[in-house]
Amino acid sequence: MASQKKKNAFYAQSGGVTAVINATACGVIETARNHRDRIGKVYAGNNGIIGALREELIDTSKESAATIAALRHTPSGAFGSCRYKLKSLEQNRAEYERLIEVFKAHNIGYFFYNGGGDSADTCLKVSQLSAKLGYPITAIHIPKTVDNDLPFTDTCPGFGSVAKYVAISTKEASLDVASMCESSTKVFILEVMGRHAGWIAAAGGLAASQAGEPPHIILFPEVAFDKARFLKRVDETVKKHGYCVIVASEGAQYADGRFIADAGSVDAFGHKQLGGVAPTLAAMIKGELGYKYHWALADYLQRAARHIASATDVEQAYAVGSAAVQFALDGKNATMVTIERGKGKQYRWSIGEAPLDKVANVEKKMPKSFITRDGFGITQACRDYLSPLIAGEDYPPYKQGIPQYAQLKKVLVAKKLPAFKLSK
Amino acid sequence: MASQKKKNAFYAQSGGVTAVINATACGVIETARNHRDRIGKVYAGNNGIIGALREELIDTSKESAATIAALRHTPSGAFGSCRYKLKSLEQNRAEYERLIEVFKAHNIGYFFYNGGGDSADTCLKVSQLSAKLGYPITAIHIPKTVDNDLPFTDTCPGFGSVAKYVAISTKEASLDVASMCESSTKVFILEVMGRHAGWIAAAGGLAASQAGEPPHIILFPEVAFDKARFLKRVDETVKKHGYCVIVASEGAQYADGRFIADAGSVDAFGHKQLGGVAPTLAAMIKGELGYKYHWALADYLQRAARHIASATDVEQAYAVGSAAVQFALDGKNATMVTIERGKGKQYRWSIGEAPLDKVANVEKKMPKSFITRDGFGITQACRDYLSPLIAGEDYPPYKQGIPQYAQLKKVLVAKKLPAFKLSK
Repeated sequence: MASQKKKNAFYAQSGGVTAVINATACGVIETARNHRDRIGKVYAGNNGIIGALREELIDTSKESAATIAALRHTPSGAFGSCRYKLKSLEQNRAEYERLIEVFKAHNIGYFFYNGGGDSADTCLKVSQLSAKLGYPITAIHIPKTVDNDLPFTDTCPGFGSVAKYVAISTKEASLDVASMCESSTKVFILEVMGRHAGWIAAAGGLAASQAGEPPHIILFPEVAFDKARFLKRVDETVKKHGYCVIVASEGAQYADGRFIADAGSVDAFGHKQLGGVAPTLAAMIKGELGYKYHWALADYLQRAARHIASATDVEQAYAVGSAAVQFALDGKNATMVTIERGKGKQYRWSIGEAPLDKVANVEKKMPKSFITRDGFGITQACRDYLSPLIAGEDYPPYKQGIPQYAQLKKVLVAKKLPAFKLSK
Repeated sequence: MASQKKKNAFYAQSGGVTAVINATACGVIETARNHRDRIGKVYAGNNGIIGALREELIDTSKESAATIAALRHTPSGAFGSCRYKLKSLEQNRAEYERLIEVFKAHNIGYFFYNGGGDSADTCLKVSQLSAKLGYPITAIHIPKTVDNDLPFTDTCPGFGSVAKYVAISTKEASLDVASMCESSTKVFILEVMGRHAGWIAAAGGLAASQAGEPPHIILFPEVAFDKARFLKRVDETVKKHGYCVIVASEGAQYADGRFIADAGSVDAFGHKQLGGVAPTLAAMIKGELGYKYHWALADYLQRAARHIASATDVEQAYAVGSAAVQFALDGKNATMVTIERGKGKQYRWSIGEAPLDKVANVEKKMPKSFITRDGFGITQACRDYLSPLIAGEDYPPYKQGIPQYAQLKKVLVAKKLPAFKLSK
């Protein structure tokens, strides 16, 4: 019977959301809808993989074509995401078995997992275990992370847009500081995301189009922080240009691995503060050099800023979603969709793939050749890499000055199984 | 002789810059260029009024029409601004006399001062003193302030764009938090500018299109902060909606006038931190309710965000600059250009004026009717007021993903006078 051959699909968003992860969802759902002969319904996990474990499946077929299309320009995770790392098979085999049970109960034959390194690992295990348990599932991992730290793929959807936001914000704030520095703020610090890799901080460097332009200093997690050298550079910069703009990665750290943030601020209640690189550096500068400072902490604003998303990023986010469905239909399994960069000066990209067993738990840091010898800036090679990723603007529609983002009905599929208790 | 009748104009930017103050400069210069028979050159103060005192006059006639046109989409103060308040006539008459001297030396007959309340006061005094000293100058004040706290004018150019930025950022970050709250951050706080008035914080309320939508709590300087009531509301909101989004004005304060920020964070060096409302509230929430939090401090990013400027704001900023020149040509003096709102549901605005002696040193706070009875939100009347001010998008041109902002040559006019020492 056709109905046996025709399997449903499960799609889940995992980890920190981005400005374009819903464009990937859009790519998955629209492409699946174009193959109704082979893919039944697309069920989305309510709050990611937690939704699968709890059998909370959002029936995306209840959403109109217009709503699904609007996902392309909607930031955050429209179906809900989660920070929930499945334990190893040995530690909690029951969770993996539950997933298979839920998939079986709802005739799910395709598993599309949209996330970073952790979810790649989960995706691989689901694929392995399902085969063993006699209910084989096609498991495709779709990359997503603002951190840009996944291996094999040239870039990760989500990164280009946060990079664009950081580059533009750095440029705009720098103009502000430059225009006021004669009588006001001399040092401005923008703290950006990137706990383990400096890709986002590096993007701040795109604000400069020639030598001497801000940002004057970038602090990467990959370069050991040297307080004396840093303060010397700040002082020299203020003396030369009248002001100094710094982009600091939240993961910037001393040679011994201590985060600058951890050496930093304590709030009124004695708690260490989150996002403490900028205020710590500011206090350092004020204390030792006496310069008036301001700092900004973009936090979620940077990864949610769909209003200024990179058109390249949006296209790639959609494409990896669409390709994942095509991969599944082509019989691929336990693989991650990747973006491959073409050779030559003109930026070209195409879709590729990488086997999941090689992707999981590998972190891609900034290569040395991307950081200037003094450790405070990006090289031309880095600019050449980053620049195309932020190219193009993909504006959402507006009404009365506010972007109009998709609003989903989120109709849940009727449950068929007993309740399941999450491991924590 | 025609050359005697034809006077030059002086234009200066004052105080904190905005996303659209250069649009005002563009309006001044382009309109003056259309009246070459009566206005000679437009000299801009290098770093604001300091430039006049130091006789550092930027000759805007050296800038191409294309560069001047590009000012319309360029944030910050292209000629430099300053925080330099002229003392009273009694305290430092020499500074006012110096201004007149410089104006005389460079045949300047028009004084266009682009700023907030302090500069309105300076503008008035320049006009009064110049008449007394026998070198009458036409002094027109052009409003500018993100704080929206000038009297008489319906709004202040600069405010609409920061309002739009805050509304959009609140909406985007809220979607992010909503999608992750099941397993991650429950409370998000966005700290915004507005030391004395809650206009900018109020704009965050535009992110919600119906009751229950974020932001769930807005903290205004106009409403005394009550810690117990605040924490109760946060807790109720998290329990009802799963998360809570707060927009907090930097000027939010206790009933006794202490800023929340001042009760707050101390950095590693024992200094009180700037911009401390968000971390102080976050620590309070973590300490008393235990919820995981994140917070953002947009700082200069909010007032420099030309990439998402309000089209209405840009138009008004240009119009007030243009009108100032027209006012001067019409023989008006010691007046401020204002924006008047038409009656009726459909938003209409026109240019008006207010005498400077009534403008100076008056601060416009949020009216009570704009704040909900519980003190945590904005009323429909407030929405009706704010909504048209953020309407429309006026995107700058881009190249390789980065906005292309004006780059000026800033050619200084040859000095004719001895040097002058600033009062501090």
